[in-house]
Amino acid sequence: MTYLQDINSPADLKKFNVEQLKEVCKDLREFIIEQLSHNPGHFASSLGTVELTVALHYLYNTPYDKLVWDVGHQAYGHKILTGRRDVFHTNRKLGGLSGFTNPQESIYDTFVAGHASTSISAALGMAVAASLNGEEDRHVVAIIGDGAMTGGLAYEGLNNACSQPNNLLIILNDNDMSIDSNVGGIQDYLVKMTTSSKYNKMRNRVYQSFKSKNLISEEKKNIVLRFNNSIKSLITQQQNMFEGFNIRYFGPVDGHDLPGLIRVLHNIRDMKGPRLLHIKTVKGKGFKPAEKAATIWHAPGLFDKETGERIVRKRIDQPQLYQDVFGHTLVELAEENQKIVGITPAMPTGCSMTYMMQKLPDRAFDVGIAEAHAVTFSAGLAKEGFIPFCNIYSSFMQRAYDQVIHDVALQKLKVIMCLDRAGLVGEDGPTHHGVFDLAYLRPIPNLVISAPFNEHDLRNLMYTAVYGNDGPFVIRYPRGQGVMVDWRNPPQLIPIGKGKRLKKGKDMALLSIGAIGNSAVKAIARAEEMGISVAHYDMLFLKPIDQEMLSKVARKFKYIITLENGVIKGGMGSAVIEFLADNGFIHNRIFRIGIADEFITHGAITELQKIAGIDEEGILRKIMEVNELIKQEQAIVVIQEQSNLRN
Amino acid sequence: MTYLQDINSPADLKKFNVEQLKEVCKDLREFIIEQLSHNPGHFASSLGTVELTVALHYLYNTPYDKLVWDVGHQAYGHKILTGRRDVFHTNRKLGGLSGFTNPQESIYDTFVAGHASTSISAALGMAVAASLNGEEDRHVVAIIGDGAMTGGLAYEGLNNACSQPNNLLIILNDNDMSIDSNVGGIQDYLVKMTTSSKYNKMRNRVYQSFKSKNLISEEKKNIVLRFNNSIKSLITQQQNMFEGFNIRYFGPVDGHDLPGLIRVLHNIRDMKGPRLLHIKTVKGKGFKPAEKAATIWHAPGLFDKETGERIVRKRIDQPQLYQDVFGHTLVELAEENQKIVGITPAMPTGCSMTYMMQKLPDRAFDVGIAEAHAVTFSAGLAKEGFIPFCNIYSSFMQRAYDQVIHDVALQKLKVIMCLDRAGLVGEDGPTHHGVFDLAYLRPIPNLVISAPFNEHDLRNLMYTAVYGNDGPFVIRYPRGQGVMVDWRNPPQLIPIGKGKRLKKGKDMALLSIGAIGNSAVKAIARAEEMGISVAHYDMLFLKPIDQEMLSKVARKFKYIITLENGVIKGGMGSAVIEFLADNGFIHNRIFRIGIADEFITHGAITELQKIAGIDEEGILRKIMEVNELIKQEQAIVVIQEQSNLRN
Repeated sequence: MTYLQDINSPADLKKFNVEQLKEVCKDLREFIIEQLSHNPGHFASSLGTVELTVALHYLYNTPYDKLVWDVGHQAYGHKILTGRRDVFHTNRKLGGLSGFTNPQESIYDTFVAGHASTSISAALGMAVAASLNGEEDRHVVAIIGDGAMTGGLAYEGLNNACSQPNNLLIILNDNDMSIDSNVGGIQDYLVKMTTSSKYNKMRNRVYQSFKSKNLISEEKKNIVLRFNNSIKSLITQQQNMFEGFNIRYFGPVDGHDLPGLIRVLHNIRDMKGPRLLHIKTVKGKGFKPAEKAATIWHAPGLFDKETGERIVRKRIDQPQLYQDVFGHTLVELAEENQKIVGITPAMPTGCSMTYMMQKLPDRAFDVGIAEAHAVTFSAGLAKEGFIPFCNIYSSFMQRAYDQVIHDVALQKLKVIMCLDRAGLVGEDGPTHHGVFDLAYLRPIPNLVISAPFNEHDLRNLMYTAVYGNDGPFVIRYPRGQGVMVDWRNPPQLIPIGKGKRLKKGKDMALLSIGAIGNSAVKAIARAEEMGISVAHYDMLFLKPIDQEMLSKVARKFKYIITLENGVIKGGMGSAVIEFLADNGFIHNRIFRIGIADEFITHGAITELQKIAGIDEEGILRKIMEVNELIKQEQAIVVIQEQSNLRN
Repeated sequence: MTYLQDINSPADLKKFNVEQLKEVCKDLREFIIEQLSHNPGHFASSLGTVELTVALHYLYNTPYDKLVWDVGHQAYGHKILTGRRDVFHTNRKLGGLSGFTNPQESIYDTFVAGHASTSISAALGMAVAASLNGEEDRHVVAIIGDGAMTGGLAYEGLNNACSQPNNLLIILNDNDMSIDSNVGGIQDYLVKMTTSSKYNKMRNRVYQSFKSKNLISEEKKNIVLRFNNSIKSLITQQQNMFEGFNIRYFGPVDGHDLPGLIRVLHNIRDMKGPRLLHIKTVKGKGFKPAEKAATIWHAPGLFDKETGERIVRKRIDQPQLYQDVFGHTLVELAEENQKIVGITPAMPTGCSMTYMMQKLPDRAFDVGIAEAHAVTFSAGLAKEGFIPFCNIYSSFMQRAYDQVIHDVALQKLKVIMCLDRAGLVGEDGPTHHGVFDLAYLRPIPNLVISAPFNEHDLRNLMYTAVYGNDGPFVIRYPRGQGVMVDWRNPPQLIPIGKGKRLKKGKDMALLSIGAIGNSAVKAIARAEEMGISVAHYDMLFLKPIDQEMLSKVARKFKYIITLENGVIKGGMGSAVIEFLADNGFIHNRIFRIGIADEFITHGAITELQKIAGIDEEGILRKIMEVNELIKQEQAIVVIQEQSNLRN
């Protein structure tokens, strides 16, 4: 670590020569490996962009020039080189650095980027802004992975990039991966483009001639580069789609060859008009185990940096992850029913659809980072009588909102939408919290919306979605461990729109939806010890909501607490008060627990649930508050009665 | 009309020879022109697809084979040929045919398609379903316009089309248009691909050789066709992006040359694997005025089919459209403030951003059918200090939901989102009603959400969004005419989150948001005549909601009616009861008027508002209901008091 310790801003980089910059890369890689080994985070992506990061900050005048990283978890190197080295150990921790780029954290971060495929559009906006401002000298660079390039938003940005005057440079960081292996036409295309040996030989010859013309005019350089593209097209029989968009294409070049990268970037930096540089990198570069298994090492958790062994906590006699329960149950159901298919937008490992992909590969589809397509593709399958389980992380489902309304709900198609990572997700922070889903789905007609209390319910809901319902069905469940060691119940039909009483009580009622209800169980037990008796009801369904149960509860209990792991505006609590208002229950007092109207930061799930007041303590606190209120009101009643007696 | 009158299903088409089919095309075109001249609808698109429609139903075995029309308004010919000729005069009318394809209407309609760019994904789902079912003989055809091809979803579908075994045929109907002129890289690309004369000559030669080989093996045909593509690539220096996606490309061919079209379609019909046929058509083909001005004739309203004159109702001394007020005000503001820019996803004419495009072309951006990009591009501009007015129809904003959350709200970027066509939109029906926006936007932190009561408010809100606020700002307003003849007030700052009392009253209060409040004004006036006194408050802002005003109203009035032109679940009325519940107002009775939990059909806006119960009559009815309730409760109180007196 000869160099890195002295780099406090990109200005410090510019003092070095290329040989020294190579050492900086070495240092940077070592630093990332060391840090990530004991503070888990996204690992392999940032190792792949070390040389690119150094080259960009060396050549560009950041922060005046704008780097827009697509999905900020490839930007650890960028963070470390821009003054955040000494706080990098706080990465993804509460109060510490964000795991993604964040303008509130540093002037070098130009845009929040937790979801993929946004960089071209955002950078194009910045480039057009520079152009409108007459800042001809300001460069804007979007850095996007080949995985993110499968998202429709990236394409919309590409399509629009040539329409206005701008000097946008798009760097396509091509490592054959998103989190899992990348899929689809664009991926095949990039592979073919790169692997043609004939082309590569020819390219090298042309490149040499290009190099020797280092001092010729920019126009001639462009001719050479364009010729390069035409040659490639001719030889590979493979055509360049980016040129089809009127975006000049350069590459592919080796993204780990620092001198080469600096040379190419330097050559194309001051050209005008939208350009795309295609670099080839290896995800996990410089750490052998990660190079070999990039999916596992995307976010590996703790590991031993010497041996390369991941430190996996043993899970004997511990509850499974909800994800695994989903994955195994899906296989069970699909083995029994030939019509069941599985669809995931680039998250087969994360959501455990990998089990189905292994067992029933013909019926499990990873469609790439393409949530909107995942839903409409599922709708097409459903239209023809198949039963798609479309699994999308809750916060990513925001990207398919219109498809849920227009392609699924309006046509009442039997698409089973499993929203993984619902509720606060922890270290990934505000971009990834799945807290809006209950509120944004509830207004959509024809949907059944449910959330399991535990693993058995998850299995029952999946079963019921197949055999007990004829339209769209939503099941939302959280990231992480469930509550049952023995989760393999025989799945059974459950009545749609029916909740259940988990516990009797007499002072007040608590209505919860989803797995967060388990925290309520604990809080209620503690309240009980204090002499407060709370009845507990699990709603199970947000829609249709259990009107019969709500009527009974409202008649029996004046004081009702609602609890959900989601935003408080428009969610389950809101549905409850709508029901009560619509049905003339005017004397109930409702106290809603949920996420307040603000974005919640990153940190451990337990920390965030505490901040949001939806953890056991927060629930208990609310119970005690309500209890105080009851006592006060009872006191008032007593005083009034005494006063009545005196008169 | 020698032929059309005898065609009651596609089977009837198959009896004809090609010369007769040409006559069918003539009839069909004549019929569409005649019908549309006195029953307004989407006009030019369907004229452009006459030959394609006839060719498809002639060659394919519909409905066993599946035709998936992208945006159903190109499918009028399809509707007429599939048994709906005699009811076609009911098109877009209440209880009549839908203006888009709709499976509930006909077995020949395979998918609801009101929003663009869905067809490839949906058709791919159907094609994969056929493949999983082993139905090798079943064909699935997606027909998509070049405008729809700019949408990200179309790209996601394309990218995924080669990943699974399927026989999908995509027909790219390229007419250089969406509703307005098409924009972007893909458009330039298609134009270049088509206009190279060298290429066209060569193509003809190759095609002749292809024709002469009509009886050779499929494999050889493919070689010839592929050679065709390579030749084109070589000669035009323009590469084929579709081949880049591993989708075989054929074309472009003249979409009005029926015999040629039938020949090509026949040749490629039974090939295997995903294919794309690129046809060139003229929007409005066969009706000269429409050919010359396709944007105006996209949906021209009534016209004289002989003279080609549009029958435009005069608007002297009539209120302007909200759209025009927006368009003119935007120009006024932008002329004063260099930082203001305008962004529209392919709707410059519809939303009247055309005024800004004419006056300030450098600062007005039509980004194509690409709502997600429109929002993130705006965010990028805002990040650099520009003030984007991003105008998107309410129902299309559903396509940019994640971008509003992740790229705008989370970063508190000053993007001014104008949601045109909010509320029930009329003849376009359920796919286009902008009724979900209040409910889906309300849970998002950091947003200001507003809806003007009239044109002055619209102007004031636009002004306030620029000068009175530092973050994202939503303004939703309806399609159609406002209420003021003299709408050009000097726009002024208004306090954010403040509503206003429009009228005093004593029996009950009515809270409305947006232009629908004008219907309440009339209903309240009629109630007044019946002796019911209703106070009327205009909320103006959904978020932040006017808590001070709500508190006053709730203290003064036990009975409160809320009114919105949007879904009742989670909307403004819901926000009101949330506020009351959270603040201990337990004795109020709230009656919410809004769209119930179902999709509303198509028809005139007045008809639909009546169905939904949000028209003047519906509001009056609710006022009278509440009044009855008040009388009943007063009677009970009187009885109780008398009973108390007796005791």
